Amino acid sequence: MENLDVIKIGGNIIDDEKKLSSFLQSFSSIQSHKILIHGGGRLATKLADTLGVQQRLIDGRRITDAETLKIVTMVYAGFINKNIVSQLQSKNCNAIGLCGADANIIQAHKRIHPSIDYGFVGDIDKINAVQLKQLINSGLTPIIAPITSDAEGQLLNTNADTIAQEIAKAMSEYYNVQLIFSFEKSGVLLDVNDENSVIKKLTSQYYLELKTNTKIFAGMIPKIDNAFAALNSGVKKVIIGNAQKLNDLINNSTGTTITNE
Amino acid sequence: MENLDVIKIGGNIIDDEKKLSSFLQSFSSIQSHKILIHGGGRLATKLADTLGVQQRLIDGRRITDAETLKIVTMVYAGFINKNIVSQLQSKNCNAIGLCGADANIIQAHKRIHPSIDYGFVGDIDKINAVQLKQLINSGLTPIIAPITSDAEGQLLNTNADTIAQEIAKAMSEYYNVQLIFSFEKSGVLLDVNDENSVIKKLTSQYYLELKTNTKIFAGMIPKIDNAFAALNSGVKKVIIGNAQKLNDLINNSTGTTITNE
Repeated sequence: MENLDVIKIGGNIIDDEKKLSSFLQSFSSIQSHKILIHGGGRLATKLADTLGVQQRLIDGRRITDAETLKIVTMVYAGFINKNIVSQLQSKNCNAIGLCGADANIIQAHKRIHPSIDYGFVGDIDKINAVQLKQLINSGLTPIIAPITSDAEGQLLNTNADTIAQEIAKAMSEYYNVQLIFSFEKSGVLLDVNDENSVIKKLTSQYYLELKTNTKIFAGMIPKIDNAFAALNSGVKKVIIGNAQKLNDLINNSTGTTITNE
Repeated sequence: MENLDVIKIGGNIIDDEKKLSSFLQSFSSIQSHKILIHGGGRLATKLADTLGVQQRLIDGRRITDAETLKIVTMVYAGFINKNIVSQLQSKNCNAIGLCGADANIIQAHKRIHPSIDYGFVGDIDKINAVQLKQLINSGLTPIIAPITSDAEGQLLNTNADTIAQEIAKAMSEYYNVQLIFSFEKSGVLLDVNDENSVIKKLTSQYYLELKTNTKIFAGMIPKIDNAFAALNSGVKKVIIGNAQKLNDLINNSTGTTITNE
């Protein structure tokens, strides 16, 4: 099987023009097949502020009302996605920007929750791995915005980390998949205040020990739990680390590698 | 050669949710290969007003400054494009939304003009017909937003009529192409105030006669001149008419058919 890197780029990098450009330069130089999933950054929040659309949060999660959906569709699938695609094209990477509705690559439904109405938020039913493979095999590099749609054509705001993870899992049927979460941190830190305390290799046993000793930063736990779930669904490695060192991340020479081995 | 319908949908239809939905229903039922190019409607202007971004016009043409470019990228390539794609997917049409940068389907450059600085406006250098053919042959229906980019990755606002025409011309190498301009009017009218005065068939000779007798509405002349240019570049037929009668337009049973025969 050929190699495929599924790479998530975090919001803080997207907000920084120079960092984004440098990241995209590294991304375009990756020789294996690749897919990029991008978050939204602060642009959507800024635009909502300017337009006077109030953002409601429940348990730290943004509620997506109709006006907010319009804003995130414009910002994520329009402004950010097309800027990334056009920059990659100028760097000789044959990028194609997609949301979940395009070529039906992600099937989703509006989130159902017993007590909270999240609004137009999507949970993923299925990744169309055959279609993504077809695009990749024809020489294209999919750049995916975190907007999906349901079977009735309703657009839905969808978590980019989850999209990356589900794509990595589904593509494992056809490729040796590495899933890379790249952001502004150096990796999973033993001490959240010390960027030099990066855990180089995290096995499930070591992770259990760390959780028992409550040494893992609480905010990282869902990300790491998801990483192990991905490993159990066929993904070879999950790597978490600094977006400014993308090539080193891919070569496993920096960041945190999460593995079952 | 197989048939391909290249269809431009005008802005006024996009602004009307019911008319758009009915148009997309007809579009999805077209059996031959098809490409849709959409304009922008009034949404971009409305958003610019709300954001306090002043629109400058020179000779009736919108000047695209950096802020306006951001708005049209968000509205055309984000909101409108993804809404059309998700609706078509729900109607069993395997749509894929693209701007010119995606898969490098349109190469453009920033407009050079001796006296007017149009800002970030794109003129088309080349249509990547091979790539569009590949997408179509793999079962996808391209839905194209009027945003392109130059070789340096600069996004550019680009006329949707021109994109439709250039795509129709380029695709004529591989398909029997019909180019359809669909909008809120019934076709090319002999009397601009009488929707029943549609010219059914317009040959170059008849067109010359009408121009000599100044019977053609001045606003239609550039559209018709472009139509004849397309016919001279391999396009089989150009059809102009009402978007609410798309299936009849495609079958040549309504609207104005412009032909060299």
